[in-house]
Amino acid sequence: MSASAAPSLVHRPKAVLIDLAGVLHVGEGAIEGAFPALARLRAAGLPLRFLTNTTRTPRRTIVAKLRKMGFAIDEGELQTAPHAAQLLVRERGLHPLYLIHPDLAAEIGPSAAEPDSVVMGDMGPHLDYARLNAAFRLLMAGKPFIAMAKNRYFMEEDGLSLDMGAFVAGLEFSSGAKAEIAGKPAAGFFHSALNGLGVAAADAVLIGDDLHDDVGAARAAGIPAILVRTGKFRPGDDAHPEIRPDFVAEDFAEAVDWLLDLG
Amino acid sequence: MSASAAPSLVHRPKAVLIDLAGVLHVGEGAIEGAFPALARLRAAGLPLRFLTNTTRTPRRTIVAKLRKMGFAIDEGELQTAPHAAQLLVRERGLHPLYLIHPDLAAEIGPSAAEPDSVVMGDMGPHLDYARLNAAFRLLMAGKPFIAMAKNRYFMEEDGLSLDMGAFVAGLEFSSGAKAEIAGKPAAGFFHSALNGLGVAAADAVLIGDDLHDDVGAARAAGIPAILVRTGKFRPGDDAHPEIRPDFVAEDFAEAVDWLLDLG
Repeated sequence: MSASAAPSLVHRPKAVLIDLAGVLHVGEGAIEGAFPALARLRAAGLPLRFLTNTTRTPRRTIVAKLRKMGFAIDEGELQTAPHAAQLLVRERGLHPLYLIHPDLAAEIGPSAAEPDSVVMGDMGPHLDYARLNAAFRLLMAGKPFIAMAKNRYFMEEDGLSLDMGAFVAGLEFSSGAKAEIAGKPAAGFFHSALNGLGVAAADAVLIGDDLHDDVGAARAAGIPAILVRTGKFRPGDDAHPEIRPDFVAEDFAEAVDWLLDLG
Repeated sequence: MSASAAPSLVHRPKAVLIDLAGVLHVGEGAIEGAFPALARLRAAGLPLRFLTNTTRTPRRTIVAKLRKMGFAIDEGELQTAPHAAQLLVRERGLHPLYLIHPDLAAEIGPSAAEPDSVVMGDMGPHLDYARLNAAFRLLMAGKPFIAMAKNRYFMEEDGLSLDMGAFVAGLEFSSGAKAEIAGKPAAGFFHSALNGLGVAAADAVLIGDDLHDDVGAARAAGIPAILVRTGKFRPGDDAHPEIRPDFVAEDFAEAVDWLLDLG
């Protein structure tokens, strides 16, 4: 165990926000010890929200995948970036061009025939120049740009892989437009999860593997945060000059033990 | 005629660098008056170099396309961004992963089996996530990154289209690496063209439609520059607070008349 800064979290939190990929699992494989650790958290009666910026996969599929790995999670406990983007679309009455993975189209719906905005997710292997160019032209015409996420990379079984943030940044570069991010690291994404639980930011904690988009973003939203050394964690993340987690744990299991030890 | 700043070019230049797309033609169509204007330049005995950041198309195909439109240009007069990138690759003995359009592969050669660098061109409709991810992983391993160009957009018959700069910027965003640009706006690209002609920068002139990558870049390389209001020119480009062309012409024909009128 090693703390990279004096923890500001001195009492056991009232709710736990848990990043999924890189914390509970990498690809299709559960991270060692994560399953019993989650059971210990549940046994302690702590309300949980699972957060994910994954934008290739519908909620139902994510829950099914987690159950297959042994994690019993309800769909209502899962907050996804596509869902957050849809809330923005409905609030504003938008009719977007969706740049999304076909698997997500069933959850999100089809693009408008005459789109008035661009909503971008991770197209994965369905990345397609013609659709990116259609989005570019809408942005050049001044239409709003919502990105489900802007993650730089994610961890797969065989290494770090390019995430959709590259294509958000690319469209921003060429069009001069600036995307509004719906998922992490937007403060609204974390606050929306806490509102659902009725817990104040300072009384919650986040556990994540991404120094910037989990830990830094949660702390910027007023939520204490634990960094785990699994998933996309890279050496040096635990010694960043500005982003200082409340605690750095080897993995999810150690993070849970540390939390439950707080009085 | 309207000059956006007092011209620093007071004598007829000794050589003319001419951007192709948006100056002589848009897509497959010659810009009105460009063909006789080019003939007037040739008749005046001025040595010419045609510059292009197009990285989808081999030199031979570009020359054939221009000839079909009526522009008689020799391959030796054409300086392309892919060619500039190949010079860097040879100078440094690199064995790159090439992210390029299949049409260009015949000119450039295949990717190395075990690449030690990334060289990126415009894949156009062949944009492919798997290859971008392979490049991303090389960049994360610290390998050199050469981009043939980093243009934001280009003009097609039906409007402005997303150019490869978006994908260069995207890979830079996700990997933290910085691409070295081989084509415009690199000063070396312009100087290499002038070296071939034995003309000093201040004695030449560039004619281009891109305020930043033609006019701004040429002037930064010490070369006077004329902006034309065709191609990717957008209203306001002729009133930029920092980038001031030596002259702003309606089109290539007016640019040529203005040049030939200089004593």
